[in-house]
Amino acid sequence: MKPEFIDYSLYLVTDRGLARGRGLPDIVRAAVQGGVTCVQLREKTCSTREFIEEARAVKEFLRSRGVPLIINDRVDVALAVGADGVHLGQKDMPLAVARAIVTDTMLIGISAESLADAVGAQGGGADYLGVSPIFPTPTKTDTAAPLGLEGLQAIRRAVHIPLVAIGGLNRQTAAAVVRCGADGIAVVSAIVAAEDPEQAARELVQAIRSARRTWA
Amino acid sequence: MKPEFIDYSLYLVTDRGLARGRGLPDIVRAAVQGGVTCVQLREKTCSTREFIEEARAVKEFLRSRGVPLIINDRVDVALAVGADGVHLGQKDMPLAVARAIVTDTMLIGISAESLADAVGAQGGGADYLGVSPIFPTPTKTDTAAPLGLEGLQAIRRAVHIPLVAIGGLNRQTAAAVVRCGADGIAVVSAIVAAEDPEQAARELVQAIRSARRTWA
Repeated sequence: MKPEFIDYSLYLVTDRGLARGRGLPDIVRAAVQGGVTCVQLREKTCSTREFIEEARAVKEFLRSRGVPLIINDRVDVALAVGADGVHLGQKDMPLAVARAIVTDTMLIGISAESLADAVGAQGGGADYLGVSPIFPTPTKTDTAAPLGLEGLQAIRRAVHIPLVAIGGLNRQTAAAVVRCGADGIAVVSAIVAAEDPEQAARELVQAIRSARRTWA
Repeated sequence: MKPEFIDYSLYLVTDRGLARGRGLPDIVRAAVQGGVTCVQLREKTCSTREFIEEARAVKEFLRSRGVPLIINDRVDVALAVGADGVHLGQKDMPLAVARAIVTDTMLIGISAESLADAVGAQGGGADYLGVSPIFPTPTKTDTAAPLGLEGLQAIRRAVHIPLVAIGGLNRQTAAAVVRCGADGIAVVSAIVAAEDPEQAARELVQAIRSARRTWA
């Protein structure tokens, strides 16, 4: 059964290419120590077996901390490791097909790059949205034009499911997206490429908390 | 429910990189016209959605011909399209994990590069084995040393489930592996890269039939 309550505040997405040769499980553990509340493993080049082994290497730790494990793209890997959810982009498995496979045992998050994507995903039964890119980002080169804060606000007004903002987010930009009603911010390089991922996560959490306090 | 009887005689494995720019669905249809009895779609670079669309593009045609559709590596894609089976290499999802996911709704084929792989896969409940490489092959560069006909015979003596031989097989070499007790031969470039895939399949079927007649 999928978890009932998810804290999307600081949502880490991994990227092996940005890890500077460090192991992703070590980075994930440090980031959670620093305050990451949700982890999405994203692997585009390794073998299926290696992806499964990596997910297993962090699963018990995450469970012990109450942090959900979400798998990018690969419904097979998510099923294999008993993940809490799967995150699907517009080039991944269609939402309806994935829901028929995982039923209500798993969260399904959908990448939305437009208002139409967002409304369609909510209507199709997505559990949350990854809204991107908010700002220009060096991590992904195949993304749509940035939505900006106005685009994020328009999506926030149109859908009621949780929204995680992604794309060009860091300590400086986090506050603005939280004030636009995002339930959390997702980061890749701001933690994966950081000299000290734990400290980077800690500073991001502080920025999010501070934005919520001044906004409330 | 997985199909009860599979004819493994001529088993096509696709490879987009060898297709000379032609669409794989067209090659698959031509190859089945020529006599291919089993089709494995193998995609290592395209998106999940594109892989699903490609599989859907051939599924009804294959079903109408009684030719099973098997998906390489990706249990998620196999589930999404309702394939007849999934084929797993030693770097893909472990057999026991895949069986727990697909239960008895799908065939599971396992790549065996040694006698130990073959015996282990049979013991783990594999439906058939792809035994490779028999001969040196240009299609895959990450394979083990060729087993040769002696290696194939040793595996044939050790396991009772169907064996499909793969690696360096063509009209000239097909007869020898059939006489070693292989239930079929799998080819990639001999059909996918052929000027005329239908004619190439027809000639391979004739070579297999001829070998079986002279052997019986």
